[in-house]
Parts: sequence; structure tokens; C-alpha cells
Amino acid sequence: MNAAYLLPPIMWEPMVRGALLEDFGIGGDVTTEALGQSDIVLQAAFRVRKAGVIAGLPGAALVFSLLDPAVRFEALVGDGQYVEEGTTIARASGPARAILGGERVALNLLCHLSGIASTTRIIVDAVSGTKARVCCTRKTLPGLRAFQKYAVLSGGGSNHRYRLDDAILIKDNHIALCGGSIRATLDAARRRAGHLMKIELEVDTLEQLETALEHGGADAFLLDNMSTDQLRKAVALIDGRAIAEASGGIRPDTARAIAETGVDILSLGWLTQTVTALDIGLDIV
Amino acid sequence: MNAAYLLPPIMWEPMVRGALLEDFGIGGDVTTEALGQSDIVLQAAFRVRKAGVIAGLPGAALVFSLLDPAVRFEALVGDGQYVEEGTTIARASGPARAILGGERVALNLLCHLSGIASTTRIIVDAVSGTKARVCCTRKTLPGLRAFQKYAVLSGGGSNHRYRLDDAILIKDNHIALCGGSIRATLDAARRRAGHLMKIELEVDTLEQLETALEHGGADAFLLDNMSTDQLRKAVALIDGRAIAEASGGIRPDTARAIAETGVDILSLGWLTQTVTALDIGLDIV
Amino acid sequence: MNAAYLLPPIMWEPMVRGALLEDFGIGGDVTTEALGQSDIVLQAAFRVRKAGVIAGLPGAALVFSLLDPAVRFEALVGDGQYVEEGTTIARASGPARAILGGERVALNLLCHLSGIASTTRIIVDAVSGTKARVCCTRKTLPGLRAFQKYAVLSGGGSNHRYRLDDAILIKDNHIALCGGSIRATLDAARRRAGHLMKIELEVDTLEQLETALEHGGADAFLLDNMSTDQLRKAVALIDGRAIAEASGGIRPDTARAIAETGVDILSLGWLTQTVTALDIGLDIV
Amino acid sequence: MNAAYLLPPIMWEPMVRGALLEDFGIGGDVTTEALGQSDIVLQAAFRVRKAGVIAGLPGAALVFSLLDPAVRFEALVGDGQYVEEGTTIARASGPARAILGGERVALNLLCHLSGIASTTRIIVDAVSGTKARVCCTRKTLPGLRAFQKYAVLSGGGSNHRYRLDDAILIKDNHIALCGGSIRATLDAARRRAGHLMKIELEVDTLEQLETALEHGGADAFLLDNMSTDQLRKAVALIDGRAIAEASGGIRPDTARAIAETGVDILSLGWLTQTVTALDIGLDIV
Amino acid sequence: MNAAYLLPPIMWEPMVRGALLEDFGIGGDVTTEALGQSDIVLQAAFRVRKAGVIAGLPGAALVFSLLDPAVRFEALVGDGQYVEEGTTIARASGPARAILGGERVALNLLCHLSGIASTTRIIVDAVSGTKARVCCTRKTLPGLRAFQKYAVLSGGGSNHRYRLDDAILIKDNHIALCGGSIRATLDAARRRAGHLMKIELEVDTLEQLETALEHGGADAFLLDNMSTDQLRKAVALIDGRAIAEASGGIRPDTARAIAETGVDILSLGWLTQTVTALDIGLDIV
Amino acid sequence: MNAAYLLPPIMWEPMVRGALLEDFGIGGDVTTEALGQSDIVLQAAFRVRKAGVIAGLPGAALVFSLLDPAVRFEALVGDGQYVEEGTTIARASGPARAILGGERVALNLLCHLSGIASTTRIIVDAVSGTKARVCCTRKTLPGLRAFQKYAVLSGGGSNHRYRLDDAILIKDNHIALCGGSIRATLDAARRRAGHLMKIELEVDTLEQLETALEHGGADAFLLDNMSTDQLRKAVALIDGRAIAEASGGIRPDTARAIAETGVDILSLGWLTQTVTALDIGLDIV
Repeated sequence: MNAAYLLPPIMWEPMVRGALLEDFGIGGDVTTEALGQSDIVLQAAFRVRKAGVIAGLPGAALVFSLLDPAVRFEALVGDGQYVEEGTTIARASGPARAILGGERVALNLLCHLSGIASTTRIIVDAVSGTKARVCCTRKTLPGLRAFQKYAVLSGGGSNHRYRLDDAILIKDNHIALCGGSIRATLDAARRRAGHLMKIELEVDTLEQLETALEHGGADAFLLDNMSTDQLRKAVALIDGRAIAEASGGIRPDTARAIAETGVDILSLGWLTQTVTALDIGLDIV
Repeated sequence: MNAAYLLPPIMWEPMVRGALLEDFGIGGDVTTEALGQSDIVLQAAFRVRKAGVIAGLPGAALVFSLLDPAVRFEALVGDGQYVEEGTTIARASGPARAILGGERVALNLLCHLSGIASTTRIIVDAVSGTKARVCCTRKTLPGLRAFQKYAVLSGGGSNHRYRLDDAILIKDNHIALCGGSIRATLDAARRRAGHLMKIELEVDTLEQLETALEHGGADAFLLDNMSTDQLRKAVALIDGRAIAEASGGIRPDTARAIAETGVDILSLGWLTQTVTALDIGLDIV
Repeated sequence: MNAAYLLPPIMWEPMVRGALLEDFGIGGDVTTEALGQSDIVLQAAFRVRKAGVIAGLPGAALVFSLLDPAVRFEALVGDGQYVEEGTTIARASGPARAILGGERVALNLLCHLSGIASTTRIIVDAVSGTKARVCCTRKTLPGLRAFQKYAVLSGGGSNHRYRLDDAILIKDNHIALCGGSIRATLDAARRRAGHLMKIELEVDTLEQLETALEHGGADAFLLDNMSTDQLRKAVALIDGRAIAEASGGIRPDTARAIAETGVDILSLGWLTQTVTALDIGLDIV
Repeated sequence: MNAAYLLPPIMWEPMVRGALLEDFGIGGDVTTEALGQSDIVLQAAFRVRKAGVIAGLPGAALVFSLLDPAVRFEALVGDGQYVEEGTTIARASGPARAILGGERVALNLLCHLSGIASTTRIIVDAVSGTKARVCCTRKTLPGLRAFQKYAVLSGGGSNHRYRLDDAILIKDNHIALCGGSIRATLDAARRRAGHLMKIELEVDTLEQLETALEHGGADAFLLDNMSTDQLRKAVALIDGRAIAEASGGIRPDTARAIAETGVDILSLGWLTQTVTALDIGLDIV
Repeated sequence: MNAAYLLPPIMWEPMVRGALLEDFGIGGDVTTEALGQSDIVLQAAFRVRKAGVIAGLPGAALVFSLLDPAVRFEALVGDGQYVEEGTTIARASGPARAILGGERVALNLLCHLSGIASTTRIIVDAVSGTKARVCCTRKTLPGLRAFQKYAVLSGGGSNHRYRLDDAILIKDNHIALCGGSIRATLDAARRRAGHLMKIELEVDTLEQLETALEHGGADAFLLDNMSTDQLRKAVALIDGRAIAEASGGIRPDTARAIAETGVDILSLGWLTQTVTALDIGLDIV
Repeated sequence: MNAAYLLPPIMWEPMVRGALLEDFGIGGDVTTEALGQSDIVLQAAFRVRKAGVIAGLPGAALVFSLLDPAVRFEALVGDGQYVEEGTTIARASGPARAILGGERVALNLLCHLSGIASTTRIIVDAVSGTKARVCCTRKTLPGLRAFQKYAVLSGGGSNHRYRLDDAILIKDNHIALCGGSIRATLDAARRRAGHLMKIELEVDTLEQLETALEHGGADAFLLDNMSTDQLRKAVALIDGRAIAEASGGIRPDTARAIAETGVDILSLGWLTQTVTALDIGLDIV
């Protein structure tokens, strides 16, 4: 999938409920209650304090509807949309118990996922015009993979494997355990992979790639930590017979050069692992 | 709490189990299984590829013991310890099914938590010699708060509120809902707070602070987005009668100047929200 | 928090769902089904058979709305309200499947929580006119702490710590482990406590209290099992510099005398541990 | 079941885990950690401060083994055993992190369940020599039914229905919904009850009982709020053809007279609803 | 219970949610999303492709309402109803995201439960006119017992024990552990069974049955793997004093002969263990 | 994956725990307890009463180790192994509380999964010598997919998609929603599929297949309900450029003829939906 779409609420719900209970503990929002303000009806606006791409609005909506079905939450933009600094992206109105009680959880979600989407978009824009797609990995945070991968889609990126079970990815350690034989690992993988499961092979050198191509190839090659020169040669060797994926050390300033080697995929673990939160705040209006 | 300590395994377990099941899906590690390598016994070393402070080793240990109680996991350093690039921080040995099956989940955890600990340490070091403590906030990721806060402790930092329910923190929105009256909010809070619950008041100006101090004060003041000059005056006004907490725009290069104003606490939301993962890898040895 | 307020439904829901599934097992309400009465629409009234203070109505409402969103549940009083014997506190109408199916779970909840609220009120009334607040402890039942503490608030009481993590409470065992040194324990606690975390010290003798006060004091003192004479002296020693909490052997008939010693808090573990259920029944009308 | 037995640990575990996480929150036992005492190895003794019957030791053992498998917990008595004031019922040794961290949860469980067992025993002793068995009802606390019913067994009592689904109990409301016809309700119940499901009928008057007996009877009759005189007549009417269960207003001082009417069962909702906790403490030795 | 009835949605919900999340994984319905069809509004019809008895419609309805409350799901028949091949049993309309996303989960549920109901009906019809009831056992699939037992009721059958705890069923292994003494097992069971718990004894021979009858009998006898001749003799021996249950090797073609021996119950483990799914499909209309 | 392998215990555990709690309810195994036999140590043997292929032994082992870690469970064969009638496949020894308490849950699991494995093997044997692989679908039972798919592997079969998210499978309904245009659906799918996600297209006619092949083809074609003649032509048209999967109406007696058409995959929904349990019993020895 490489386009923004909606995860059904049933997928957001356990995470959102968990986050609310984590924040509420046993006593809930003792400040708002102590001040006797829980029943005051508020109008709140979610404003971005820095330009970026939004992701996570369905989760934020759920924060408030779970706290109080009577809260009116209105998203003014859609996930995947780029907005300028100062834009109001959503409005919520309802009792302070729900609005102030859910504020932090909703913002934590929005800031994190929009941060991922925004950075993804920067890389996507950097490679625009090439055929390369920008892709995240399994380097995600515990319990948040579905949402982080969704945020990458929202930013215009693509997803790699969702889990260990949806494709075969043969890494250096696997080859080492097979006595270093690329041929043997590929044969074993092909013999036992499910028929709807692709096989990708990680190679560190052009020699490994050549060996693999001589022995039947793979659906994709993960070209690990290669220079742009090596990548260009690898693309030539593969010659359209498999997907060429560049990985390792891809940064905003190097992405374009790497994309221009002709690879199909740029995969970046840090997209979901080193996230700069997008600054979003809630203003009472 | 402002020192590294151990969370009991019972607190790590639901998160670690969830992360493993998230990665295993229905088919588990199909690559290792397809290659027929699951029963091969491996020796693996966790190595840091960049210097930093480690956090999360008890969680990583649990990843492997949950997968196979026979895996031998040995931590060579403790959480909270600073290590140089290239240090082996832990060793694991056991069948590939467990070692390769758990690798990514263990690394995702270690890289994230050690990233938090490492950045915390940088700020802690920057303010060393002052009395200021470095503190995280409730800007955490869903389901991960206990572990992120623990990582801050591992880095030598302190924790702010754990949740909405363990202290009263009166923010600008609360004051606005009280018609702008600082006195009224403080009175209400004092009347209704539990006797083991502290009261902190967020103030944006010295005038607000003076008003608050005139009306009985608070246990702590969150001095929001003040200049170092304002902070210095605020500290003088408070004069030891309450904790002075600086918040807003604190970065590695500004931390010391802020600490030198005499505040007690520097609180940084981005410590847990904008995390640079520490680069840690698993090598088969 | 020392006043009745509403826990958001999201906090009640897991407990209420669990209680319903515990009672329904695999076959559900086989009696009503066997009699072919499940679809009959009923009007039911919840009536108190003894005067008391009500707590738990939002939980009871949830019992029925979870069973059938079409049930109409109307609370006629609010939690925290004192009602005379015979008062109808709520009405529910809907199919027998939901009304009779949820009856016992709803009553179990209401009778228990209202029992706590009612007893709390008795103690609160006994000390009225003094400055003492009536407080529960961590002596609660597994899984029910949030609701039991809420019931104490409903009865006009206050809450002590919610959990182990929201304040430091140094008990006799801790002092013993520190070689009996009150000074050392207080120093360690102050050095490492979070800045929004209060420190309370349990003392059994006036000597311990004096030692503690000489060495910087604490936010609160738990005066354990002291006579009213000792309590009066303790209050004088503390002299407003900390909260004075009396604990141990406080009963309805001794509460006033203890409160009149000038302590700030009366804490009673039995409020949530030895609960006399309030007698409430459901009548079909 | 009317004798003490062991619930498998798998049944205790979710409740015990839940109680520990409820008490630990996000930061765990911050007091013991702040004092730097977590790794100190302790010897602790569980002592009863008032005579009674013990219940819940397997749950208490689980508290500590879940916190740290290295804790050595030794029960010195068995559940169901009567012990004098001052008896040490169990010993635990291990690091303070586990012993002090689990202390309150273990005690909360033991005090509550032993309280139920002790009161049950008082009633059982009161009726000794008669054929009457002492029985609890579905008036239990949310999430705790299995353990409360187990405590009743530990005290020498019996269990009534576990849930709504294991027997048919026709109450006054059901009869009313059937137009008041006892015959029609009994016919419907017999036609549709599972073949291993007993049918019990609640009757308020001897007339109702006679009608029921004329129309095929039931497996058991719940004789609700009858005087001892009425009970004696009811027993005579039933004449061994069904179980006679007395219910309503049974207290320690009335139990024997009621038992001597010849009824088979005394059922007491308050056994599990109005529980006087047994006073048990943990001493560091 | 031996008639179709409704399990409350709260009992279906955890299973349905689990099944949806099991199918959606992390990425959800990537096909419909990739094709950009998720928001297209569809009309779908559930059609049986073979005659049978329907069960599971409330679960199917829940599949769609959980995915999107705006889906309109209309059941055209009720659970327990026999329908001819080609019958449309339900209609659903809503966005493809919900209709196509939930299709397989809804069908998996409907096909399995309707398969159970349909086979049950075949046996029920086979014995019609005799007094025998058709009953399932505890041979069910993990996590599905409530629903499989409900499907048996929907097919006109009855339920045996729901669990281990709702009746005493003494099997050959128990007798063996009691040294082969039927009398001793019966005495122990009667002494300790709850008063609303029936006691059933499995017997393999008429001699065992006679011994049991001589020593007070039981509420029911499970006549295991007896010939019709033996069953007839067993029924005569029991002579209405207990329920006679035939078990072992009962198939559609042998059921009538067995029922005609006069037994009260035919119990068939394979009803829920060897299920022929009813063929039901979803057509876009 | 198309060979038997081990799912890590962490994947079995939630299902096994759930099944045990489902069977134990609130009172547990009241029969064994009532008879006072719970502590008797037993030797039990799991014996197959009909030849077949075994699957589920790790789950059965877990049943007993969860009930009592002291139970000794020894598997005498491995999952995936064919055994003759009467073979003892595992032995367990331990207290009756665990052996008899877990018996039914362990057998329910073993009988179901071994039933799937055994039937899979029959089809696999029927097509032996052809290149066709035997494959299950997403027609599985709620909550049991991982285990049913594992059982298919144990029987020598292969797995299709694990979930909705691991491959794109364009069905007739999707094509219809795209206005019937195969080209448009394929284009959309290719544009937006993840790079490790295969695309399969369901076709009902050879014309559809030709159109698809003309427009870039797909990774696999699901040839739905085609005659062997059509299948042969389809295989010729595809000519090795994609995987050919036959689906619809494949039974033991038709499998070989279909396999001989040259298709790569035979997929059978009923393998996991219409399961004949393998008869396995537990004997006390």
C-alpha cells in the first residue's frame, strides 16, 4: 500500500483505550475535577505550530468519542494532507471532562504520527521524479506498528513487511547459518515459501548479487549499505528482473542521489524509529 | 524518582508479549523456518554502534525468555550505564527460532529506550554543577509511558507526573475556565486536593506568579516559556517557598543557561516525544 | 480529591464487562430464557431498603447499556446523595433479557459502593466541625480500587495514595531496613523523590516525630496507633509545618475524639476492607 | 462443592496480575526504590492478629512468585485451617522489591478471603449437629466471585449457583411475569431446562409451596424470608421430595434456630457482600 | 436450555473483535484499499447455497456494526430457522471497507454455526416422536464453546454441561481412581456436591448400573457405548428414577433406533467437533 | 511455508489459557475435587483410535504445564507424523487435578488439529507426483487461524494468505466494483501494492485470464470453479509466467485429476472449515 487510507476504528480502539487508561490511572483528571470545571462545555481547536503532514485524526476522534459520545469532533483536513503552520486541523466541543481529559492522549498520538508523515513526505519530495518509492521497515515501537506504518502511508511512503510472516527476507545471518551459500538459502526458501509470499535477499556485495541472479534470483534484493556507484551497478545487473531496494544510511540529503541510481525502493528504518514529533497544540477557543 | 532502578518483570511482560505477537502474526518467523534453521543454536552479541546510555535490558531479556526459557541471556552492563561505541552490552545464546525470532523486538525496545536515556544524559551533563534536575513530561507514546519514564531515570533524569491523577497541575486553560482568577483556582485546588497530592501552577508572566504567591502559593510553579531573565526574577520571587520548574524550548545548547537561573527543574516534553534511537545491533558470533 | 465526581465510563467499562461475563458464563440467563420471558418489556425500580449514601449509579447504568443500548436507565439521585429508606434511586425499562440479566451485577456494584459511601459519611459526620478529613487507604479489593476510592469520595471522604507510585510513604519496615535512622531515610527520600511527589513518614512515637522534625521534616506524618493525648502533642510539635495524619483503630465512636486532637487526616483502612453493603433491591413495577 | 480445595493457579493468575499492576501503576514501589532498599533480602512473616480461618494462601504465594520467581514463599497452614491469634501462617523471603512491593496486594487478598472463611465457619459451627449446610449466593464482588466462593468452601460452607447459567432459579419476578402462575413457570422450566440443570423455585408462602408440590415440584425450594414456624411447616410439606433452602435474614444468632427447622440449606448473601476482613499483617523478621 | 434464544451481544463481542483483528492484522484489507474501492457503498446479500438451519446472525450483524456503525444489516430470517437452498438470509449495505472487510469473518462464523445447527436438526428430526432429546458435549473448539452450544440450541438440540463446574459427571477414570467402587464414588459425590448440582454417573455395563441404583442412584446415567438391547434394559432398570443418557457411536442412521430404546438423552460429541460447514456466500447485488 | 514447524509457545499460550478458563469457569473440576481425587498422581496415555497425522502436541503440552509445571508431558511422536490406529502419541503424569482437569481441553485441541492434518495428508497423497501443492484459505474458525494453518502445514500442505493484509487478492466483487475492467484493477493494484506483496487475480473464464495476461499479468491466478479442461487451457495460457491456483469443488476423489492439469496450487476452503476430528483419547495407565 502506498497511499493514505483509513484503518477501521476497530484497529485504533485497543490502543486508544489503553492510552487513556494509562493516563487516567485510578483517579482520572484530578485537576479539572478539583477545580470543579468538568462539566463546563468547551470549544477546542487543534492547531499545528509548524507546517507538516497530518496523520492520526481518526485516532484523535476516537479519544474523545470514547470519553464521551456527545463530544463533537470535526476534522478539518484529512490524514495525508500537508498543512501550513497555524492551520486548525480539527475542532472538538464538549465538557471539559472529555476535552481536557483526552487532550494529552490525542496530542501524543497526533504529534507522533504526524511527525512520521511529515518526515516521510520530505523524503518522498526529495526523490520526486525518480521511480523510487520511500519505505519503512519493522523498526517500529512496541504496540504501535499498525499506526506508524499507516503514518508512513499518510506521508506518501510505502510499507515493507508488516511482520515476520508476510514475506521471506533472507538476511546476512541466515546466509551465514547456511554456510554462506546464497544458492542453498534461495533454494530452501523457494521450496518452502507460500505461493503468495515474496522472497527478498539481502546482499552486501555485487558478487553476492551476481551469484543470486545466476541461481534463479529472487523477487527483490535488499542492497545493504552500498555506495551509489555500487547501487547503479546492482540495478544494471538486476535489469528489471527483481525489485531493487536500497537500504542503509539514507538521509534527506542523500536520498535523491540514491534514488537516481535507479533503485525501486528506498527503505529507511529511522522513519519510524527516530521520529521528530510535529508540534500540534490544543487551544481553548 | 531520579535514579535508575528496576521495574519488576510483571510490568514489562504485557508490553513485550504484545510486541512479540505483533511481529509474529499468524505464521511467525517464516524466513528462519523456511530455511530450516530454527533449531540451530546461536551465540549472539548486542553491540552499540554509537556511544550512549543503555536502557531496556530487562525488557530485552524477557523477549528471549518468553520465546524460549532455555535461551541464556546475559547483560554485560546495567541500565543507566554509559558505554562507548562498539561495546557489547549483552549476549544471548539459544536456538535461532528464539534468537532471530526475537531480534527485532528486542532491538526496537533497546534502541528506543537507550535513545531516551542517552539524550537525557546529555542534558543532565549540560546542567551538571547546578541544582537543576532534568525531567520528562506526559508527552509519551501510547502504551509506553512506564518504559519511557524509566529510560529517563536511566539517563539520570527525573519524572514529572506519571498520569493525570498523581498531582494537580493547573494550566492556562484551567485558569481561563476560572475566569482568569489565579486565586480562585488555587483556593479550589487546595480545598479539594488529596493530602498527598502536590499542586503546581503554570504561570506565563511574573505578574501571575506574584499574584499566586500573594494568595498562598503552590507546591511548584511551572514557569512556561520564560526568558532566562524572567526565570531569574521568578526564582527570586519564589525564594525557596516552592519548586521552580522551567519549561518550553529547552534544548541541549540552552539548558545550561536556563539551569543557571536557579530553577529546580528543567522539564522537556521532547525527551520522550522526539527520540533519536541509539544504534544497537545484534551480531551472530 | 475530596468531593464526589464522575469517573469517565471508559474507566468503569472493563470492570462492568468483566462482571457481566463472569455472571453469564456460557449460557447466560438460562432461567429467563427457559421461561420464554426474555423479550417481555419491564419497568424496574432500584429501591434502597435502608437509608444511606448512594455510589455506583454510572456503573449500574453501564450494566444495562452494555446489555442492550435500548434499555432506558434513569438515575433519580446522584452519587454522593444521602437518601432515606424506601427511596427509588433509579428506574430502568427494557426487555427482561437485559433487566433481569443485569440485575444482580448492577446490585452487587451499587450495594458495595453505596455501603462504602454510607459508612464514610457516618465518619465524616462524626468529625464535622473539626478540620479533620476522612481518608481511605490502599487496603482495597483486587481490581476494585478505582471504584472503592470513588465511593469514599462519594461519601464525602478523601483519598490517600492511589497506588505505590504516587507518593513516598516511609513505613516502619523501611526505617528498620535503614538501620533505624529516620534521618537517613528522609535524606534518601528527599534526594530521589520526584518533584511533584510528597513524602510522608510513619512514626510510632513522639521521639521519632521530633527527630524527623529536626532533620528537615516531611510533607506529612502518619501518626500510627497513637493515643489522643499523644496525637495532641504530635499536632503541637508539627505546628502546621506538615500534615498530621492519625491512623489505627479509628472507629465511628472514637473518630470525633481523634479529630479533636487537631489532626488533619483520619485514615481508615477498614472503610474499603470491611464493607457493610447497603441494602438495595430491584422491584418490577 | 462443600469442602476446601485448590483452585489451579491459572485461575488465580489474571486476578493477581491485575491487582499488582493496579498497585504498581507506572512507577512501581517508589518508596522502596527511593530509599535504595530494593535489593535488600528480607525475611517476612504473615501473622494473624485475630483468630480465624485462613483462605487465599495460593493467591498470596502467586503475588510473590509473579514478582520474583526467586522469592521463597512457604505456607505454614493450609486454606480452610482455623488458627489462633498470633499464628504465623506463612513466611516469605526475598528482595525487598518483591516482598514490600507485593505486601499490600497479598494482604488485601488474604484479609478479605480469610474474613469470608472465618465468618462462614462461625455460621457452620452455629448449625453443627443439624443437617443444614451453609451456602453463599451470587451476591459477590465484580471479578472476585471464584475467589469469594472458594473462601466460603474454605470456611466449611457450600456454594449455590456459580453463575446465571448453571441452574434454573425461578424468582418472584419470573412468576409475576408468568401472570403469577407457578404451574406455568414450572412447566416451562421443566420443558426447556438442560438435563443436568436443577430447577429451584422461590416461594414466599406455604400456599405457593403447596401449589408447586401439587404440580410436579422442583429440585429445590428457596423459602424466602419465612419464620421458623413457616419453615418447619414447609419442611414437612416438602417431606424429603426436594431440597429445602432457607433464605433471608439469617444471622449468627438466628442461624441455629433456622437450621433446627429441618431445612437442608441456609443461604446467606451477606457472607460475600458484607465481609469483615480478618486482620493479618506482615512482619519483617 | 433446549430452544433457540439470543446470547446478549456482550457475549459475542470479544470473539467477533478477536476474529476481525486476526484477519486485519496490521494493514487491514489491502486489496480493497489498493483498488481505491473502500468508500464505494455496496448492497450485499447473504445467500445459503444449500438448505439448512441458520445460526450466528447476531454475530454476523456485530461484525459489520463493529466495523462501521453506519452499515445497515438486516436479518431476514431468525437463528434456528430452516431455509431452502438459495434463500437470502440477510442483507447488508454500507461502504466496501466494512462489507468486503468483514465478509470472510461473518461468513466463517455463519457457515460454522449454521453447519452445527443444520446437523443437529437432522438428528432431532430423526428421533422425532420419541421422547429423546439431542445433546452436545464439552467436545468443543477452544474459545467457541458458547457459540457452538448456542448453535446446537438453534438446531433444536439441548446442551449438556457448559463447563467442568456445573454438574458432577463421574467417568470411568474416576471410578478406577476410587478402586472401582461405584458406591464410594457416589457417596463422596453426594456428600460434597453443591445443592443445585446434579450428579451423573457413566456406566459401561448393566451390572454397574444395578450397583449404582442399589446405592442411592444418581440424577442421571451416562450409558456409554451400549447396544440398543442393553440400552432398553438400562431404561427398564432405571425405571424413571433418573435420566437415561445414551452416548457413543450415535450417527444419523442409528439415532432413531437408539432413541426408541426409551432413553431421555442422546449425546453426540461430534456435533460440535466434526462440523460440516453450511455453504453460505455473500453476493454483491 | 509448506512444512511442519513449531509455533513458539507464546503463540499458543493465549488460546490455551482461554480454553482452560472457558472449561474451568468459577468452580473448576468439581467432579474430581468432590471425589477427593485431585492429589492422586496419574499416568496417562494419549492414544489415537484411528490412523492419522498428528498436530497440536505443543498446545497439549502447554495445557498441562500451565495447570501444573510439575506435570511431566512427553510427546512420543512429532507434529506432522503419520501414526497407525492404537499408537500412543504422548504420555503425561502428574496429579489428577491437572491430568483430568486438562484432559478435555488437550483432546479438543489435538483432535481438531490432527483432523485437519490428517485430511490434508490425504489430499497431499492424492496429488503426489504432480507438482501441485495443497493449500488452505482464510475460511478458518474465529481465533484459531494460526493453529489451523499450522495443522495444514503439519499435514504437508501449504498456506495461502494469513490475513487480509499479506497479499492482494482481487476477487470477482472487486472487478465488478471497477466496472468489470480487469485491466483497471490490475493497474491500480500494481500502482499501490507494497513491494513485497504479491498480486493474485481471481478469474472465472479463460477470456478474463487472457485479458489479464495481455495487460501485464499478475503473480498468481485463482482459477475459480473451472473444469479440468479449462484448467489445462489456463495453465497453457499462463505458461509459467504466474502461479496457477485451482479453487472450487476440490475433493479427495477429484484432486488428482485437477492436479494433473498442471496447476501449481489446489486451494481448499473446507480443509479448515469442515473438519473431521481425529479420534484421540486419554487412557489412565
